[in-house]
Amino acid sequence: MSRALTVAAGQLGPIERADGRPSVVARLIALLERAKAAGCALVAFPEMALTPFFPRRLVEDDEELAGYFESEMPGPETRPLFQAAADLQVGFALGYCERARQNGLERFFNSAVLVGPDGAVIGKYRKVHVPGTRDPVPGLPVQHMEPRYFSDGDLGFPVWPAFGSRIGLAICNDRRWPETYRLLRLAGAELLLIGYNTPAHLPDAPWQNDLRGFHHRLPMQAGAYQNSLFVVAAAKAGVEEGVEMLAESCVIAPSGELLAQAEGVGDELVVARLDLEMAERYRRFLDLEGSRRSEAYGPIAAPTR
Amino acid sequence: MSRALTVAAGQLGPIERADGRPSVVARLIALLERAKAAGCALVAFPEMALTPFFPRRLVEDDEELAGYFESEMPGPETRPLFQAAADLQVGFALGYCERARQNGLERFFNSAVLVGPDGAVIGKYRKVHVPGTRDPVPGLPVQHMEPRYFSDGDLGFPVWPAFGSRIGLAICNDRRWPETYRLLRLAGAELLLIGYNTPAHLPDAPWQNDLRGFHHRLPMQAGAYQNSLFVVAAAKAGVEEGVEMLAESCVIAPSGELLAQAEGVGDELVVARLDLEMAERYRRFLDLEGSRRSEAYGPIAAPTR
Repeated sequence: MSRALTVAAGQLGPIERADGRPSVVARLIALLERAKAAGCALVAFPEMALTPFFPRRLVEDDEELAGYFESEMPGPETRPLFQAAADLQVGFALGYCERARQNGLERFFNSAVLVGPDGAVIGKYRKVHVPGTRDPVPGLPVQHMEPRYFSDGDLGFPVWPAFGSRIGLAICNDRRWPETYRLLRLAGAELLLIGYNTPAHLPDAPWQNDLRGFHHRLPMQAGAYQNSLFVVAAAKAGVEEGVEMLAESCVIAPSGELLAQAEGVGDELVVARLDLEMAERYRRFLDLEGSRRSEAYGPIAAPTR
Repeated sequence: MSRALTVAAGQLGPIERADGRPSVVARLIALLERAKAAGCALVAFPEMALTPFFPRRLVEDDEELAGYFESEMPGPETRPLFQAAADLQVGFALGYCERARQNGLERFFNSAVLVGPDGAVIGKYRKVHVPGTRDPVPGLPVQHMEPRYFSDGDLGFPVWPAFGSRIGLAICNDRRWPETYRLLRLAGAELLLIGYNTPAHLPDAPWQNDLRGFHHRLPMQAGAYQNSLFVVAAAKAGVEEGVEMLAESCVIAPSGELLAQAEGVGDELVVARLDLEMAERYRRFLDLEGSRRSEAYGPIAAPTR
């Protein structure tokens, strides 16, 4: 019996501050409609798919900053996207800036939700590996200050049974960490959806600039192979706020092979038909549970000395 | 200040049962001499570099089996190799079958030693991820029964300061596990030497046959990039006991890029000059200690449920 699932990375071109939610939501709905036409059951949208990637700069205006965060999901402005999902019966994963209230305190996370074909939220993930610095690094033309705006995710790496598969989420920098894939696989994942905003150039490490695409794919391909996972990775791409971002949204098989990759740097649907039995085949061959040597792995989970 | 180290993978062609130690040791010494001429300070030899890879079959003759194991390293037959290292001032890593005595009991390991340019043993590693089955799998033309002959390694993943670097060892199947690279990096490694005997075809998973080289390199390239490591990987290659083995010995940079790869399937030296500052550069950029989120990694070190 073959289990097939057609999915897409819903790559977005840049989002400028002046764009506002309604125009972005309209673009997301347009991608959902194209996904429906292409036979997709599920679309992965990027990290921070509703706003510019503002942590590259100091946001000193409180009202501007508040405007980047969602205190409910869906909220009034995003509800049309959830309604479109239900109408089309196409699910999605959506990255956004989350404003949460915990024990009477406000906390802020770089989050993503998984939404079913009925338009209902299945689950939420909060980015664990939040990169960058709290304060600007002197001399850098573009900063990366996620820790200034976001707490580390506190939900671990959950996996949900959905779309006839078992699905987990990860966000941007998470994809460079082998622990991300391993934790998701140990929790039973078969399909991983990743959204990202990745600068095409590193002002503090220009010696890596020619390798940005390679360094984007390599950990995902290895993570897929080492954990028998399908991976769908969706970029916010193009030049946003004057900064060029890596496109190269893609779909990767449990063999580690690239199944599909974006051709452009704008709004684009990258479609692949997944044979979920392939994940099963690799999973049986790997026999992770029987072959791993957890008694040797203690230092990985130990705090840094 | 540039720190440079010229190293080689010392790939071996097949070793047949009839060959005997002296002829194999002579081949290893010939590679050491060529390494000296190429300016190498260190050569990585394969897993089980003194014998055929016998776990692909049932060895029912006790004397034959005993003949594959070393109860001391160096022993009478391997001492000429250690003497050659001292004479040439070229160090090496050597995989072999170890017969150990622990608390009055005999134990058997798939081991490797790191040997300095003075011909003295610096340290020993015992393969942690011992793959395969204890008993033959019915119907398979070639078996893989390492657990029949070897215990799991009990020395963890040690790292030694040597050759102006910090060096760790891994053996064959270890290289497919992201934990191997992470544990070595957490212990301070900068250069990892891997020996392997990898069948070119998988009788129980022929659907992977076209990907054997890709699946060999992918985890090493990702492990190198994700842990700022140089990796040197040395094959036992060619057709041994009628079984074709993967060659493709190689050297990989902390960027994940391939620096050199074997051209043939016989005895061959694959040389690369390592700029160890490159590892430092990637290490500083990654900031593993500051960026990892060990509080989320618990399940990786937990026993399989």
